[in-house]
Amino acid sequence: MRTVAFVTTGHEVLRGHTVNTNAAWLARHATDAGARVRSVRTVGDDLDDLVAALEEAAREASTVVVTGGLGPTEDDRSREALARVLGVPLEDDPAAWAGVERYFVRAGRPPAPMQRRQALVPRGAEVLDNDEGTAPGLLARRGDTTFVLLPGPPREMQAMFRRHVLPRWRAQGGLDETASRVVWTAGAPESEIAAAIEDLMRAPEPVVGTHPDEGEVAVRLLARGPAAVARADATVAEVVRRLGAHVVSTDEETRVAHAVVALLRARRRVLTTAESLTGGLVARMVCAVPGASEAFRGGWVTYADAWKARALGVDPALIARDGAVSEAVARAMAEGARQRGDADLAVATTGVAGPGPDARGVEAGTVHVAVATPAGTDHRLLRLPLPRLTVQRRAAVAALDLVRRVLLRG
Amino acid sequence: MRTVAFVTTGHEVLRGHTVNTNAAWLARHATDAGARVRSVRTVGDDLDDLVAALEEAAREASTVVVTGGLGPTEDDRSREALARVLGVPLEDDPAAWAGVERYFVRAGRPPAPMQRRQALVPRGAEVLDNDEGTAPGLLARRGDTTFVLLPGPPREMQAMFRRHVLPRWRAQGGLDETASRVVWTAGAPESEIAAAIEDLMRAPEPVVGTHPDEGEVAVRLLARGPAAVARADATVAEVVRRLGAHVVSTDEETRVAHAVVALLRARRRVLTTAESLTGGLVARMVCAVPGASEAFRGGWVTYADAWKARALGVDPALIARDGAVSEAVARAMAEGARQRGDADLAVATTGVAGPGPDARGVEAGTVHVAVATPAGTDHRLLRLPLPRLTVQRRAAVAALDLVRRVLLRG
Repeated sequence: MRTVAFVTTGHEVLRGHTVNTNAAWLARHATDAGARVRSVRTVGDDLDDLVAALEEAAREASTVVVTGGLGPTEDDRSREALARVLGVPLEDDPAAWAGVERYFVRAGRPPAPMQRRQALVPRGAEVLDNDEGTAPGLLARRGDTTFVLLPGPPREMQAMFRRHVLPRWRAQGGLDETASRVVWTAGAPESEIAAAIEDLMRAPEPVVGTHPDEGEVAVRLLARGPAAVARADATVAEVVRRLGAHVVSTDEETRVAHAVVALLRARRRVLTTAESLTGGLVARMVCAVPGASEAFRGGWVTYADAWKARALGVDPALIARDGAVSEAVARAMAEGARQRGDADLAVATTGVAGPGPDARGVEAGTVHVAVATPAGTDHRLLRLPLPRLTVQRRAAVAALDLVRRVLLRG
Repeated sequence: MRTVAFVTTGHEVLRGHTVNTNAAWLARHATDAGARVRSVRTVGDDLDDLVAALEEAAREASTVVVTGGLGPTEDDRSREALARVLGVPLEDDPAAWAGVERYFVRAGRPPAPMQRRQALVPRGAEVLDNDEGTAPGLLARRGDTTFVLLPGPPREMQAMFRRHVLPRWRAQGGLDETASRVVWTAGAPESEIAAAIEDLMRAPEPVVGTHPDEGEVAVRLLARGPAAVARADATVAEVVRRLGAHVVSTDEETRVAHAVVALLRARRRVLTTAESLTGGLVARMVCAVPGASEAFRGGWVTYADAWKARALGVDPALIARDGAVSEAVARAMAEGARQRGDADLAVATTGVAGPGPDARGVEAGTVHVAVATPAGTDHRLLRLPLPRLTVQRRAAVAALDLVRRVLLRG
């Protein structure tokens, strides 16, 4: 069994100025490859701390992967820490220097003198080429432990992990059969999703968890060991069966906006948008999907009542009677947008994002979404006692989810 | 000097299914309070691993803060690990149980039998009330080391850190004088910002770093020790002087959209939007700011050429001649939107988000933004060889930044 411990260096993480996305990326890719991730450590650039972290990690795992600390400055101490752990000197390595020079030739400028540090290699360590930056990686063994040092910039780290680390692991074996799956859902809160699959979440294998993400909820599954793929697929099928229409996709990339664009393209329908509360977010989520232009030509943000009347033709008397945050106005916005927007379907949002109630006393978090089609108009009322941005985000997801459900109906 | 080491538990982080935002939040708040954060460790729920992590952390820091592992299930082992480290038994604690019961009375449902685990307390440890959830926190000392155990859900963890941990630290002293500052910038790439303050970034104190975030670039400063506030403020003044018009604000919350809304409100101007490439993102960023309705009434997403012509009055012959992604069309979109949108200013975006070039062969990443006012129209051309979502995000920031610069001019 291949066990892995990660050591990430960097004061920016310790000061809380950046979130440690390298650790999450590495943990996911190592797990999906079939390794067992035992721990993640983050330390600063103190040499003793780094050495201690490497030693601790080596007690826990057969492979220790270090990110960061390979730059050209004196704060970059991962090379020295590795040399100390191996008990060997750091030596100037001509091959490593050639790699640094090649990078600068491609970049069209000469290396600075301090770049010379990046060609220092602990005696006996292997140099890993870095095509994307100046810092070569390093690989060395001590007894049964392998140390891998990768640069900190995410693009370089990811490219080198894929190129140098994963192929070695696959060649050497020791990886579990592993199947990692996701079921994306929309339209139900996490608590409802979790309640429907509580027994699956409690079972030891596959591991099943719910993860809310920007208003949608992912159900993630991880099966390991013999027949992992078959067990994961069987559990996915059961999750999909139980969650029914809440399921958006079983594909990592396909979230609610992608599902809506795919359905619109498959059915050759065009959507338009009329957004008050969400202020353009629904259109933005649609336009973020490649190929959206086949399914979306344009829409309106009608934040003020006058815009709802002028752009969408909503009767000002209706707004005066029911208020802009009402079922009747949501329906009228969607119907007006569909007629004026040269579209088959229109989705509308209106609500109170907060922090306070609106001028008529409608509570913050009250949201109406409506979807108009030639066959009629669907409406949903949501009550979201949440912060402003969360209300807007959840409302946009609910609006797209209502489009999805209407499209699925026929 | 108060040194802190964090231990976060949770398989979801080790599998890469969630990014460790608890660690970033804690690191930032501890640093800003004047503590020195030495390390962050993430481990799973194996009791030996947890005990080892607590011991390692205790060797590095006088305060060890653990998050997670306080739930009611058998996988929640932080209580046991603490008891093991302290060398004391776990005992049923009536006060802790009373706290759990109080939570369930408020929640209007009875505690499950397994909740009883949450009232187990290592002998001699102090129970920290949790008003937001079921898991009480724990605090215990061993020699010079203080261990603090907080629940994993971020809202509960944050509330308890503020309520139980920070006041104790302040009362006990040992905190550095600390001044943490940010200078938000827009309109220049990170490399240009960094080049202008390179010497400040190289100086040992205050620590200065650049952090790109969703198309804007933060310059973050941290000064510690005597006169930290004065040194931080002097450096902020120097950064602001050097970066000039790129500076959006020196306030954590005020990013480019906030600055635009504040300027519009102060000058009693109304903005409208005409978005092609950004698909509603500019409007969405404006509407995310509380109070936006005073400065923004509505706008258009004109993704298709027909919408640009019909909604904004852009001459179809112009689109045919120059293409939709052109300076002339960007200007015409902004001018049309201003006239039809009942607004003082209008901002327009058009471009190729990619991945490929458009039908006329305009390269992905080509972006035109324009801002129309009664005094004339400003235009910017950007070339952003970046992924689709990044192009859209950078274009939206550039559009808002051009509005900001036009407003500052008069």
